[in-house]
Amino acid sequence: MAARDAEGRIIPEARPRGSGDEESLEVWGFRDSAFQVLPNGSVSFSGSRYPVSGIELPDLLPWMRRILGVELPVSDTHDSHYPPEIPPPRVNPEFLRELEGVLPDEALSDDPEARLRHGHGHTVEEMYLLKYGRLERVPDLVVYPASEEQVAALVAAAARHDVCLVPYGGGTNVTDALRCPPDEDRTIVVVDLSRLNRILWIDPVNLMACIEAGAVGRTLQAQLAEHGFTLGHEPDSVEFSTLGGWIATHASGMKKNRYGNIEDLVLDLSVVTPLGLLTRSAVAPRESVGIDPRRWLFGSEGTLGIITRAVVKLFPLPETQRYDAVLFPSFEAGVAFLFDLTREAVPPASVRLVDNLQFQLSQTLKSRATGWRALKRKLEKLLVTRIRGFEPERMVACTLVYEGGGAEVRAQRRAVGRLARRHGGITAGAENGRRGYQLTFGIAYLRDFVMRHWILGESFETSVPWSRVLELCENVKRRLAAECAARGVPGRPFVTARVTQVYQTGVCVYFYFGCYHKGLAQPIETFGELERAARDEILRSGGSLSHHHGVGKLRRGFLPRICSPAALAWSAEVKRAIDPGNVFGISNQLLGSESAGRPAD
Amino acid sequence: MAARDAEGRIIPEARPRGSGDEESLEVWGFRDSAFQVLPNGSVSFSGSRYPVSGIELPDLLPWMRRILGVELPVSDTHDSHYPPEIPPPRVNPEFLRELEGVLPDEALSDDPEARLRHGHGHTVEEMYLLKYGRLERVPDLVVYPASEEQVAALVAAAARHDVCLVPYGGGTNVTDALRCPPDEDRTIVVVDLSRLNRILWIDPVNLMACIEAGAVGRTLQAQLAEHGFTLGHEPDSVEFSTLGGWIATHASGMKKNRYGNIEDLVLDLSVVTPLGLLTRSAVAPRESVGIDPRRWLFGSEGTLGIITRAVVKLFPLPETQRYDAVLFPSFEAGVAFLFDLTREAVPPASVRLVDNLQFQLSQTLKSRATGWRALKRKLEKLLVTRIRGFEPERMVACTLVYEGGGAEVRAQRRAVGRLARRHGGITAGAENGRRGYQLTFGIAYLRDFVMRHWILGESFETSVPWSRVLELCENVKRRLAAECAARGVPGRPFVTARVTQVYQTGVCVYFYFGCYHKGLAQPIETFGELERAARDEILRSGGSLSHHHGVGKLRRGFLPRICSPAALAWSAEVKRAIDPGNVFGISNQLLGSESAGRPAD
Repeated sequence: MAARDAEGRIIPEARPRGSGDEESLEVWGFRDSAFQVLPNGSVSFSGSRYPVSGIELPDLLPWMRRILGVELPVSDTHDSHYPPEIPPPRVNPEFLRELEGVLPDEALSDDPEARLRHGHGHTVEEMYLLKYGRLERVPDLVVYPASEEQVAALVAAAARHDVCLVPYGGGTNVTDALRCPPDEDRTIVVVDLSRLNRILWIDPVNLMACIEAGAVGRTLQAQLAEHGFTLGHEPDSVEFSTLGGWIATHASGMKKNRYGNIEDLVLDLSVVTPLGLLTRSAVAPRESVGIDPRRWLFGSEGTLGIITRAVVKLFPLPETQRYDAVLFPSFEAGVAFLFDLTREAVPPASVRLVDNLQFQLSQTLKSRATGWRALKRKLEKLLVTRIRGFEPERMVACTLVYEGGGAEVRAQRRAVGRLARRHGGITAGAENGRRGYQLTFGIAYLRDFVMRHWILGESFETSVPWSRVLELCENVKRRLAAECAARGVPGRPFVTARVTQVYQTGVCVYFYFGCYHKGLAQPIETFGELERAARDEILRSGGSLSHHHGVGKLRRGFLPRICSPAALAWSAEVKRAIDPGNVFGISNQLLGSESAGRPAD
Repeated sequence: MAARDAEGRIIPEARPRGSGDEESLEVWGFRDSAFQVLPNGSVSFSGSRYPVSGIELPDLLPWMRRILGVELPVSDTHDSHYPPEIPPPRVNPEFLRELEGVLPDEALSDDPEARLRHGHGHTVEEMYLLKYGRLERVPDLVVYPASEEQVAALVAAAARHDVCLVPYGGGTNVTDALRCPPDEDRTIVVVDLSRLNRILWIDPVNLMACIEAGAVGRTLQAQLAEHGFTLGHEPDSVEFSTLGGWIATHASGMKKNRYGNIEDLVLDLSVVTPLGLLTRSAVAPRESVGIDPRRWLFGSEGTLGIITRAVVKLFPLPETQRYDAVLFPSFEAGVAFLFDLTREAVPPASVRLVDNLQFQLSQTLKSRATGWRALKRKLEKLLVTRIRGFEPERMVACTLVYEGGGAEVRAQRRAVGRLARRHGGITAGAENGRRGYQLTFGIAYLRDFVMRHWILGESFETSVPWSRVLELCENVKRRLAAECAARGVPGRPFVTARVTQVYQTGVCVYFYFGCYHKGLAQPIETFGELERAARDEILRSGGSLSHHHGVGKLRRGFLPRICSPAALAWSAEVKRAIDPGNVFGISNQLLGSESAGRPAD
């Protein structure tokens, strides 16, 4: 039994970070999990973590060849040269001497691969450079503080010795947010928060928990579940990303319909800044206490300070959890269903709609069934395509996750059934729902796999009002096809969209984009141009700069297009006022870089 | 039929501000509505706006005498000397000359009563000084811009000529937020936003509307309802307060369970600041776009700029609206019911629980029934007190407002019925529910009425986790009794609490506090000490500085107790960076005043 404090709060035991859960340095995810080509041309996925693990996938490569319109010979691999050349660290001896009194020796690392890993996230360019190029600038030192006091001493020392600090959570960003500015001459020290990973208390009466910022999503989920609670926050990166990272990125979870996004979940936080420790004496359900610095940390992306802990809302584990999937004859029908769902019902915890191409992809990530299962699947397919007349090249799938009380879930399921029928939907069952929901985690490994076969791939997202969803998806697909053709990109690009979040006012659309690049003179530069063209098209189509990935350095060039000059100047002035020495010099958004606040340059 | 734009958005007609709706200058509310004593000693309420209007209230004064333990002779009135002496305006001729090119003559007023009205809200001290004293410093000029461009020109001119600007919405704040700093030597110009009151567009597909900041709640409600929509935001001040004021105060609405608080409702806003116009090119359902200056306006209380418009979420008018009331044997039972309601059900749009004293007050705001109605009421009372054993000095009432689809409301009502029975509740019917919900609007007039009879009264609120609700209410009542006794306050203080908002994590508690003061040497100073003692007790009991009233100048002295020095320094630095000339010099919180950021002074 866990200890209790004087106020009846549960004090969970501190726990070592999971062993057997080593993460890859060179590619996304766990070391034990990766796609590989078998001698027979099928693809398999190693390990046992995911629904796709240990299954032979004969259809994946043939399907990719057909969609991309390229030959994709299995033996023609683009092999990684990881680790790339890593520049030597720039040492600041005075700062190091001061650290001696702050951190134990073993909490410092100048190991080249550790430094490299702490200087990137998972953009396609970063992953490409890791394998086939080099990162121009990487951190000079990684430190692992274990307490808020150590963090405070670090920040004070950095300010005194003109050192640049970079907070580090899970390293999962996809916005170049961790990438070091090439022109940063100061010593760059990454503050890895993995030792600040405890749940400090759980208040079972008031449904709150105080959690250190370095706590990783999957561990947090498991620990809270032991006490009967959940935070309900499940971004696609939940296996690796951290509470502090979610706040700094302004993250969104897949089950936000029930639990809210990160800004809805955090009640209080503590932050070490160059001005000292931002903290409050008590936590309240909701307040009006003037301009509240705590709110400024949302979306701060490492530029203002180091989040050390937060008080978050908790939810009792749901009485009922149920997956489901519904097939629709077209993306248009699926979107119309989602719209009606937000208008006429309480949407389930998670509702996602993949377009036809992504539906096809999901089918290739299944084993080829044999015997009775094969017959069943064939019959199902016949029913859908022949009897109901769904076209294999148009049909789409919606996955749903219900969480809540029994009656609540029953009412939601009735509404979904009624509205799905209205739009020609056919239920595809709980198992397909679970698979569809969890496929995201497996698909995340696909990018590094196909990169070895001369394919570059990236995901990007936006939010857009309902009335422009279809137009936006079409425009982005058409624009990318045209831009690829104009640049002589071989074959055809792969562009697919899914609706991952619904709101009363609109949705989040999440794209995957991939293309074969062998033969291109400057593949990664070309890919960057294509991504920017897609973003341009998104903005033209009424979409936002980002729904939940954030800005980082990848998208900051677009800020002057969406923010008035005064809005940019505000942010820049705030940064200068709060961090006059630019200690937090990671230069995300237009904060702290030379051009900050001067978007007209 | 309203016009539509190219995107299919509804463009409502501009509308003149309602006539026949004149507001009082000297007291709260509409001119046609006020309590008065009849020759027979009963009290009546004039006009026809409220349930209490036009009804004879024989029980109010006798009950007040009993509760306060004072004689309260009807003829012994403390008559208002309104208008007080109003200091002459300080004129800045250069600024005035520049205004000639910006605003028409009729958009400027230096009328003394207009200047006075724009220099206060509705704290007890402000209302007392209006009638029995004077305000040391009042605005020098009131201007009425009619466009964002005029606001921008005003701000630029103020910055050039070192003039202090104060944005003004409905003037309903209760935090001294509009009160001029006595030591402000510059010309103080209040920017009244009442001409910026249009709904610019309604997007019926994406459920958004763009509304100018000066739009008043009651007008906004009526106009949106004509098109089938509601914003769902109903603060107690909704008759008079404005959209811009709600944002600047970080307001909360009575129906927030269904519609959310103001921060949940606003998707985008435009603000004129000393650095220029903060605005964005498009509006999205939800975004992650870095540190977002729009969020800093929530709770800014006039210190950072002038909010000119906002894009808000809309909701279709609910299919069903239903009031209800439930009696509980004690406040403890009522709170336990509310707790279970948040744990086991979806709470109705509004749920409020008044304590016994407030329940008694509500009974005195009824006419004495005659004939069959009297019999019915007597029988009901017998049932409650004799058969069910409720004690008249302990029982409490909960009012509920259901809004939503028919099935949704039915499910909520079933849950309420089940949980109410669990805690010994007895339903008191829809009519009592409606009366209880709307009583708030009438009670707001009571303070000015009793002030004429030597009673000072004020409301204040807090938010607090569930586990400390009862303790906090008890502590505040006990503390105020002791503090009154120690100061020789005549009779007994009136202190009553209600729970006005429920969250998963806790509640908002709203207090009324009143006491008879005839004979006290310094009544308003003493009352201020009592209020501060109550706030001290709230903070000691785990409550927040404010749930929705805000900080203003009334509560800023407590900021150093709840915020770390670095948090205060952050806010002060931000203010200096964004408004270096302190154009928005109204000095709320610790922003822009001499002591800003130096709380240790």
